[in-house]
Amino acid sequence: MKLTIALLPGDGIGPEVIHQAVKILDAISEKYNHTFEYKKADVGAIAIDKTGNPLPDETLEICSSADAILFGAIGDPKYDKDHNATIRPEQGLLRLRKELDLYANIRPVISYDYLIHKSNLKKEIVEGTDFIIYRELTGGIYFGEKKFSEDGKEAIDTCKYTASEIDRIAHLAFKAAKSRRKKLTLIDKANVLVTSRLWRKRVKEISKSYPGVQLNFLYANTAAMQLILKPTQFDVILTENMFGDILSDAASVISGSIGLLASASIGKKTALFEPIHGSYPKAKGKNFANPLAAVLSAAMLLEHFQLIDEAEDIKNAVEKSIELNITTPDLNSTNHFSTTNVGNFLRDFIL
Amino acid sequence: MKLTIALLPGDGIGPEVIHQAVKILDAISEKYNHTFEYKKADVGAIAIDKTGNPLPDETLEICSSADAILFGAIGDPKYDKDHNATIRPEQGLLRLRKELDLYANIRPVISYDYLIHKSNLKKEIVEGTDFIIYRELTGGIYFGEKKFSEDGKEAIDTCKYTASEIDRIAHLAFKAAKSRRKKLTLIDKANVLVTSRLWRKRVKEISKSYPGVQLNFLYANTAAMQLILKPTQFDVILTENMFGDILSDAASVISGSIGLLASASIGKKTALFEPIHGSYPKAKGKNFANPLAAVLSAAMLLEHFQLIDEAEDIKNAVEKSIELNITTPDLNSTNHFSTTNVGNFLRDFIL
Ligand SMILES: CC(C)[C@H](C(=O)O)[C@@H](O)C(=O)O
Ligand SMILES: CC(C)[C@H](C(=O)O)[C@@H](O)C(=O)O
Repeated sequence: MKLTIALLPGDGIGPEVIHQAVKILDAISEKYNHTFEYKKADVGAIAIDKTGNPLPDETLEICSSADAILFGAIGDPKYDKDHNATIRPEQGLLRLRKELDLYANIRPVISYDYLIHKSNLKKEIVEGTDFIIYRELTGGIYFGEKKFSEDGKEAIDTCKYTASEIDRIAHLAFKAAKSRRKKLTLIDKANVLVTSRLWRKRVKEISKSYPGVQLNFLYANTAAMQLILKPTQFDVILTENMFGDILSDAASVISGSIGLLASASIGKKTALFEPIHGSYPKAKGKNFANPLAAVLSAAMLLEHFQLIDEAEDIKNAVEKSIELNITTPDLNSTNHFSTTNVGNFLRDFIL
Repeated sequence: MKLTIALLPGDGIGPEVIHQAVKILDAISEKYNHTFEYKKADVGAIAIDKTGNPLPDETLEICSSADAILFGAIGDPKYDKDHNATIRPEQGLLRLRKELDLYANIRPVISYDYLIHKSNLKKEIVEGTDFIIYRELTGGIYFGEKKFSEDGKEAIDTCKYTASEIDRIAHLAFKAAKSRRKKLTLIDKANVLVTSRLWRKRVKEISKSYPGVQLNFLYANTAAMQLILKPTQFDVILTENMFGDILSDAASVISGSIGLLASASIGKKTALFEPIHGSYPKAKGKNFANPLAAVLSAAMLLEHFQLIDEAEDIKNAVEKSIELNITTPDLNSTNHFSTTNVGNFLRDFIL
């Protein structure tokens, strides 16, 4: 297979972890005789520094014409100081999502036996956790009309959803549930929000086409409790943009392996794959950032193109590195390895 | 002191836990020679059943003229089936908040040594947790304009905040921080929402009047992680209505003692005190619901009127009951006590 992959390393530890992910993709292409063509582009703080724009036209063009995007991380503390700054790294990411219509953010949350002791939650609570969150990514209060009054005394954000925005991600989530443990939980706040009532209405309607999937509902506040009280109860979670932002980050701490969590953001034409850990500016350039989430993001990319054996190879290598403790300091306090060394181990294991 | 207290037991286990709280208030009034006059009123599902209205005029009148309100819980599964029902128990609570202008919801989160083992989080993470959440309760997306299009294909919720809505609760939170560990964390989503930018702007401005208090900021998604990663880092948390709803419930699981968490909702003229556990319909009428959160809500009520020794008496009694394992089945799997018996122990301990 031939794939054009846009590489957006971004800020902080983004470049060094993406470097390892590319190393692994190269190993896969060598082993399975695929051709991966990479096109590198800037996004985030580094793009602002170079061009004044967190998402330069050139980057958007490269992404639009690529089969998939491998994304590092964005964010730099220097842009966090002035919270009213109009040009911010995050805008690059938000605009990218909107322009490429990456409407479904997908985050698997799985507990790895060898890492369970890293979780702040007790072993018996975390063990067996295996769910996947479908977060709507291009609608809701993120992209609704905003007003800030001239006298600076009043502000308004608008949360809007249409049936079609809900339907397309609902179908994706139901299909995922169908191929898994057949349980879908819609998280909303239908006791307060009319947008949530629209979600319930559409999702109930759509559930008729998936008779084998059990549908249930949770309020966002109750869900925040239940994720910690009993994470094993979930299979597929479906939710809107803002609740998804908060709850998927809440969920990321369950398994104790934030450095291992990958995500996919799916659109009709292209898809973006990204580790969830962020730019971690303090670790930048020190060669100890954990590359596993970026590597697993590359595995999700391959799965997206039905390269199942190839993805399986990567996942096995990652599990082996954890089992053998060939890991960076975040996972390994005694005898840790560098970012590069972990990448090299994975490559050698695959080849 | 003479206080008129409106009693709104509400639904589910509300009546039985409020009954114990009143028993304790009576013990306090006897011991300290206060006069507490109670006025009972209906709210929630029981009010709908009787009058068709979750907040009858009579209830609102009783609450408006009382010095304080002691609230049980609302919600009945029969109203959860039809999510589009226009008359719902929750409306009673939301209207009560709005009509009485109960703008600040205050929730302490404390870990009790004797109960730490009940938490899903590890002991070393939970130990020493002692923070307090100030959630804005009468603004934001809860009370903004709502639209549901006639063809049922589009819905809009509006999140609006004004400077004065932010200022009044910010002052309360800063005052609390000043008398505590002098750290205030504003939780928002200023990288996405203009309402959050207004919050930051006002809170920064107001912080100038509290020079001893250290102010910092967290995004709501990061906060959801940090609450579980390191709960001891927080002192006073300030946030808007919807983030507060989700994050205060997330926080409620940290200490492992949901059955002990009380809350206050403060307005200019009156204040409402409420256990956070909800109506727990399955336990209704069985005399095993945990009365401690309702009893601690009564203690918060007394504190509100500067009856500090009185509140201290109640808290000591509660701690003693936990220490001696004179508790309901949720806290005590071996040799548990009934709701009534726990109430009796507390009363006897106080007198
Ligand atoms: C950086 C920020 C705008 C973004 C979001 O809120 O979606 C982030 O939290 C995420 O989840 O990718
Ligand atoms: C019942 C519901 C409307 C309410 C809310 O969302 O505020 C509840 O979750 C709470 O926190 O008191």
